[in-house]
Amino acid sequence: MPEFTATDHLMMTRALRLAERGAYTTRPNPMVGCVIVKGDEVVGEGWHQRAGEGHAEVLALQEAGKRAKGATVYVTLEPCAHTGSTGPCADALIAAGVSRVVAAMRDPFPQVDGAGFERLREAGIEVAEGLMEDQARALNRGYLSRLGRGRPWVRIKLAASMDGRTALANGESKWISGPASRNDVQHWRARAGAILTGAGTVLADDPSLTVRLDEDIAFVPPLRVVLDPGLATIARGKVREGDAPTLYIHAPDTKLARGISAQLAVVPVKAGRFDLAAVLKLLADRGINEVMVEAGATLAAAFLEAGLADEVLLYVAPVLLGSNARPLFDGLNVDHMDQVMRMETVETRLLGEDIRVLLRPRPSGARPG
Amino acid sequence: MPEFTATDHLMMTRALRLAERGAYTTRPNPMVGCVIVKGDEVVGEGWHQRAGEGHAEVLALQEAGKRAKGATVYVTLEPCAHTGSTGPCADALIAAGVSRVVAAMRDPFPQVDGAGFERLREAGIEVAEGLMEDQARALNRGYLSRLGRGRPWVRIKLAASMDGRTALANGESKWISGPASRNDVQHWRARAGAILTGAGTVLADDPSLTVRLDEDIAFVPPLRVVLDPGLATIARGKVREGDAPTLYIHAPDTKLARGISAQLAVVPVKAGRFDLAAVLKLLADRGINEVMVEAGATLAAAFLEAGLADEVLLYVAPVLLGSNARPLFDGLNVDHMDQVMRMETVETRLLGEDIRVLLRPRPSGARPG
Repeated sequence: MPEFTATDHLMMTRALRLAERGAYTTRPNPMVGCVIVKGDEVVGEGWHQRAGEGHAEVLALQEAGKRAKGATVYVTLEPCAHTGSTGPCADALIAAGVSRVVAAMRDPFPQVDGAGFERLREAGIEVAEGLMEDQARALNRGYLSRLGRGRPWVRIKLAASMDGRTALANGESKWISGPASRNDVQHWRARAGAILTGAGTVLADDPSLTVRLDEDIAFVPPLRVVLDPGLATIARGKVREGDAPTLYIHAPDTKLARGISAQLAVVPVKAGRFDLAAVLKLLADRGINEVMVEAGATLAAAFLEAGLADEVLLYVAPVLLGSNARPLFDGLNVDHMDQVMRMETVETRLLGEDIRVLLRPRPSGARPG
Repeated sequence: MPEFTATDHLMMTRALRLAERGAYTTRPNPMVGCVIVKGDEVVGEGWHQRAGEGHAEVLALQEAGKRAKGATVYVTLEPCAHTGSTGPCADALIAAGVSRVVAAMRDPFPQVDGAGFERLREAGIEVAEGLMEDQARALNRGYLSRLGRGRPWVRIKLAASMDGRTALANGESKWISGPASRNDVQHWRARAGAILTGAGTVLADDPSLTVRLDEDIAFVPPLRVVLDPGLATIARGKVREGDAPTLYIHAPDTKLARGISAQLAVVPVKAGRFDLAAVLKLLADRGINEVMVEAGATLAAAFLEAGLADEVLLYVAPVLLGSNARPLFDGLNVDHMDQVMRMETVETRLLGEDIRVLLRPRPSGARPG
């Protein structure tokens, strides 16, 4: 393990922050940031903005120009060694004559996976790996999940009352959470590759599931995914309107009614329920790194029960809906304390009057799917 | 409204912090702190420690000695003008020759209520009222509730899972919240004049409801109050053990079994439920400023429904107990959004893995009792 200086940490922190600027746009590619330092001076910076456009290293090299010669390059992910939409970054770094490359982590993408580092080292460039690797992994947990586990990172978003209810018995749930929470949700949507819901939610709430952000914030509209075994909702709903694409996942024996065109995919159903692992594999195959589940309590519970929920993003509003209201996770039944699902509190934040809690199931708390 | 300087604010802040040191011991008296300043120097400090012992002003004057002459006195509550267990503080301040008294608020206690200020002014001392009054009122909200509303400040303590459940369907609830939360509860208990529970909780959980703090922390054991219409629990339970007194509140037609001695009080029952307003009046008459309700979901909901809950102190643990578990407020039923009980989020804090939330019902959310 190489030793890193305070300057190394400072520059990698800067590269990580640059990388994050691509959160709403780089999909399916990972976020990558790059800082080029010559002596004490930052001579080039870049981050990957959109798939198909320039990589972080290339943009930083462009800014640095001739000053890249003999410089140190900080990059949050291993430079690529293959020719995709753009040429290999490793070659560009070699051509620019940089003397040292510090990378936060190896890129598990099969056509890279160490080959970038190897090419740099063969060209006589000093390569140091693993600086702030945890932070770099956290940044791209969706991309890493897709490559490593063959499924996207799954974030379940829910809004509840202080007594753990999502809606009144009659289904009413409007304005439980406040404006700050509703705005915050837009940022999480923007970074998701797909927003997934169920037919029940489409029928009950008619959500548009689009990203609504200020005009100066660029984002790629996430794919909207509706789990609808019988395609009962396909003819209607705001979920079909707007710029974002919509994919309907249906049961094998369902046929699309005449005169309707839609993006469709088939996933097996067992006992009336979709095979959620198959749903996630399908999305991963389409390049989805992060899925945001914005569905009802039953589908949310099903992801949790199946051990397929990586995070719960919970907005808790300071209201009481009472004990006859609808539960947060419907169908999640616990009979003994040793079955209790334990979570890790990753972060809490006040959003106006609401409390936002980010939770992750603890590995020991995951239950067999 | 007099103008106050930065020094005035600084000294009153110091007096308020001193006052708070009496939180676990001054009951039924209010917490009071006093700082005496001569020129730029603090020459005396004091706070009321226990009912029957010296008042804050007298203790501060003792420390100041002759330096009190011509000094400014900062006190969080109007100096008393009557002879209780100790002589009137106003007279002591006059005798010491202080030249200015700055008080945060008037004392609504009937035998004071402006008479202290009047006596000081008659003696030629400059009196300024109202500095940091909001903070001073918050400090003694229990005392002010008892004097102003004829009932204690009611704080409902509950521990719940992230999905708003207090226990499994079978009643199991041990260790839902973590050690940091369980320790935190002790401090809230210590400042309460009474800890109130129901017979159901005594039977199910057998709590001791005592204060367990480090030995170097002094406190007066709070009165334990059990609402037990038929005195079904009187022969047993940890709630009768230890140093703290225990009061059983029962229905009018219930008689104490032979051979048992206990502190008893009678409160009317309507439709099988105690008149909670009468319970609180009874406790106020006994000098209880703050009541901490540590009961089951039904009694907690009853206080809320009756508009008799001033605060909800909620410990939320990062576990999911599922939708078949017991609700946070049982019997609190809401059928329309306009009946939703809206709360104010006063404070949130992370305690280990748990989240502590302090809530107050909004006035518009209070429902007729």
